[in-house]
Amino acid sequence: MTAYDHLMAHQRQTEALSKVAERLGWDQETMMPRGGAEQRSEEMAAMEGVLHARRTDPRIADWLAEVVPADEVAQAQIRHIRRSYDRATKVPGDLAQELARLTSVAQGIWAEARAADDVAAFLPTLSQVIDLKQQEAAALAQGGDLYDALIDDYEPGATAATLGAMFDRMRPRLVDLRAAVLAAPAPAPLHGHFGLEAQLRLARDLASTFGYDWGRGRLDMAVHPFSSGGGSDSRITTRVVETEPFNCIYSTIHEVGHSSYELNIDPDYALSPLGHGVSMGVHESQSRIYENQIGRSRGFTGWMFGQMQERFGDFGVASPQAFYAAVNRVQPGFIRTEADEVHYNLHIMMRFDLERALIQGDLAVDDLEAAWNDRFLADFGVAVDRPAHGMLQDVHWSVGLFGYFPTYTLGNVYAGCLNQAMRAAVPDLDEALARGDTSGATGWLRENLQRHGGLYEPREVVELACGFAPNEGPLLDYLETKFRSLYNL
Amino acid sequence: MTAYDHLMAHQRQTEALSKVAERLGWDQETMMPRGGAEQRSEEMAAMEGVLHARRTDPRIADWLAEVVPADEVAQAQIRHIRRSYDRATKVPGDLAQELARLTSVAQGIWAEARAADDVAAFLPTLSQVIDLKQQEAAALAQGGDLYDALIDDYEPGATAATLGAMFDRMRPRLVDLRAAVLAAPAPAPLHGHFGLEAQLRLARDLASTFGYDWGRGRLDMAVHPFSSGGGSDSRITTRVVETEPFNCIYSTIHEVGHSSYELNIDPDYALSPLGHGVSMGVHESQSRIYENQIGRSRGFTGWMFGQMQERFGDFGVASPQAFYAAVNRVQPGFIRTEADEVHYNLHIMMRFDLERALIQGDLAVDDLEAAWNDRFLADFGVAVDRPAHGMLQDVHWSVGLFGYFPTYTLGNVYAGCLNQAMRAAVPDLDEALARGDTSGATGWLRENLQRHGGLYEPREVVELACGFAPNEGPLLDYLETKFRSLYNL
Repeated sequence: MTAYDHLMAHQRQTEALSKVAERLGWDQETMMPRGGAEQRSEEMAAMEGVLHARRTDPRIADWLAEVVPADEVAQAQIRHIRRSYDRATKVPGDLAQELARLTSVAQGIWAEARAADDVAAFLPTLSQVIDLKQQEAAALAQGGDLYDALIDDYEPGATAATLGAMFDRMRPRLVDLRAAVLAAPAPAPLHGHFGLEAQLRLARDLASTFGYDWGRGRLDMAVHPFSSGGGSDSRITTRVVETEPFNCIYSTIHEVGHSSYELNIDPDYALSPLGHGVSMGVHESQSRIYENQIGRSRGFTGWMFGQMQERFGDFGVASPQAFYAAVNRVQPGFIRTEADEVHYNLHIMMRFDLERALIQGDLAVDDLEAAWNDRFLADFGVAVDRPAHGMLQDVHWSVGLFGYFPTYTLGNVYAGCLNQAMRAAVPDLDEALARGDTSGATGWLRENLQRHGGLYEPREVVELACGFAPNEGPLLDYLETKFRSLYNL
Repeated sequence: MTAYDHLMAHQRQTEALSKVAERLGWDQETMMPRGGAEQRSEEMAAMEGVLHARRTDPRIADWLAEVVPADEVAQAQIRHIRRSYDRATKVPGDLAQELARLTSVAQGIWAEARAADDVAAFLPTLSQVIDLKQQEAAALAQGGDLYDALIDDYEPGATAATLGAMFDRMRPRLVDLRAAVLAAPAPAPLHGHFGLEAQLRLARDLASTFGYDWGRGRLDMAVHPFSSGGGSDSRITTRVVETEPFNCIYSTIHEVGHSSYELNIDPDYALSPLGHGVSMGVHESQSRIYENQIGRSRGFTGWMFGQMQERFGDFGVASPQAFYAAVNRVQPGFIRTEADEVHYNLHIMMRFDLERALIQGDLAVDDLEAAWNDRFLADFGVAVDRPAHGMLQDVHWSVGLFGYFPTYTLGNVYAGCLNQAMRAAVPDLDEALARGDTSGATGWLRENLQRHGGLYEPREVVELACGFAPNEGPLLDYLETKFRSLYNL
């Protein structure tokens, strides 16, 4: 066996074990009896221990020193293996364990603090998490920027400087669009009761409509919808609020986007480093383009209006145009996960600035709530009414996910670029969507982006698909065109 | 840390990882999308690799050489760890891997052969499995009896000689009882349609009636019902045939018995070698006593008759007595898993003799079908009509489970002993069961047997619970009394 064969064989088992660990997480959120939580945390820790030992196996360094990749695919595999090994060995084992232990406890403390609207109960723990993340970042950065080192975990190649500059270019146009839209008359919302079983049937049918491969997936309920797994087993979840069907509908389409990316990767890359979505940003581009540029388009909502009428009868919306407006209703709100396309990125930019300052030591944890509330008032024109609607709303910081937030907006930016290229490439796309036929869109995405998995770097694969370097222009153009037309501005 | 602490810490992680592997099996049978099978087999193999490495970790030998157990519990822990280490290190790694690989393929070949009634398609594979199992047995037996070495995996301390002698004592009385019962008029069977949802509701209510802890478990559907897991997460499965409600009812009660054993073990033993049911025979005694001596008793079936009437209306059975007779209807049949209490052990004894002869080299694989069919005709008075009803009916041999079958009858024998002791100890048990109150029975079993987990050896824990050495007498007395009364003999 060559060094390359050794590396790939070792990696294949590690990938299989990490699939097992991921499925354990899926089970925890969908199936686990409530009494199983404590034992489960020991099971997860044991799996993490096994994975960490495999990722830092000293033989990897020997094989990497010897390996001569034969082609582009082998080069990409080695690039990923080298990156993973460097990362795993740079962070001291004790620190990694301490972080794992703390963040698992911190999540519970955060959840209780949020339920009680009690910032003070969360701050000491958050402070500890930030301290450990700073140590981790220092180990990874080796003299470079701390926050960049954390971003790199989720979006290799991205930096706070380039992201920050892009966000600065985006903010004025979003703020202007937001102000104009909110000054116009608001469309009518939905009224009615949308039963659980009927919503779940619709969710399944929508997943099928978007080409979800039921032979390699399944749909279950979860408090916070997510997708999980890859290769030949990638599962989605959804939730149902019986007064708000868009919650279930767009959660489902979003997760189908994530899951389809995983399932459409070239099967030759299965159980190898290339067999995953390449970054969080590119992943989010797929969930967002399925959800927004396709799922919230005029064409597709027209088809969905018919589906809703068939399934739910009269629900207070008279025409496809009114339904399109209801789906895309813009309204200010405290909660990021409920934000419309116009507001969403403003939420992200705010978190980006705050977490960057926290990690770089420019913002003290004790000042975070005031900083959050001031910024929210400035960006959204509303005062935060309670911490659960403010700095306690997201789980991310409690579990140490610093550097993750910007990938949401990066995903939207990539989705904007891909949408522009896709619409140029696929003739009569809107007409097809109006018939409930997404195959032109999903087929284009599969062929031009999804199948490559980790073969190219994130920006590279988006550029390859689009034919131009990714930038924020297409997203902003799309949003302005869509919402100015919708609101008759 | 002492050697004991090291051993227990190492074992704790191994136990946690083996829970993960077991849950992966549960997922495969209940949740996995069909396209996930191939990837799943790699995941399972990777987990087995991890577990094998942990079980053969050379530090275990060092710790075992040093350890000084402080008390009875520590002694029992060390006994289990030593046994597991000896077993894992005696079998060469190559052989273990070859067996794992072959049996995973063999199961598919067996399933196809059974579907096609094609013995010849299965024999070459069966022959390979037997060859490898003989090699494994030779490695384990180190000069002793090959079949004994295999039995020891499932029932430590049992031997073919003592089991064979016991079976020889049981057979004449069972054959006599069978002949007498079959000569009498048969009770009427059920008629009607029993809908899936209503059966599942009944299954859930029955599980609750038997004290199943839903906070640490759940019920799902599976083609072949099983229970899975332990500690604070032990799940059960059932199946539904809409014309035969007893299938779902008694599968459920059976699996609740297995699962309750696991869930009722002293929580101090969680994630340690004592935290499991002590043997397959003792495990089966719990599922069988829940199912038969309690679930098929006159008292409990009387209560269940009322439940069935409420849920399904008129189903062609007029009285509690007629229902009791229908539940306990004795009829000859080819299939072990569908056998009544009178026939069941005759199926096992036949498999015991055949597999013992196969492993000891006294029966050639090519002669197995004839041997099976001759023996079946002799014991059951009917000629096997097709291989799927004969030697191809059970999965066990294809997956290498030689030595497992006798534990089914041993479980029935233990259940007979425990039933005798329980009825002597719990006053008015039948009256309570007639009210649907199983707590006297399940409480006695929990207190006297289940809570001990692996603390005592299998025969020892049964003797401790019963106050006498386990033997076949109580089971045979119970069967004769029950069925002679039921059939007016």
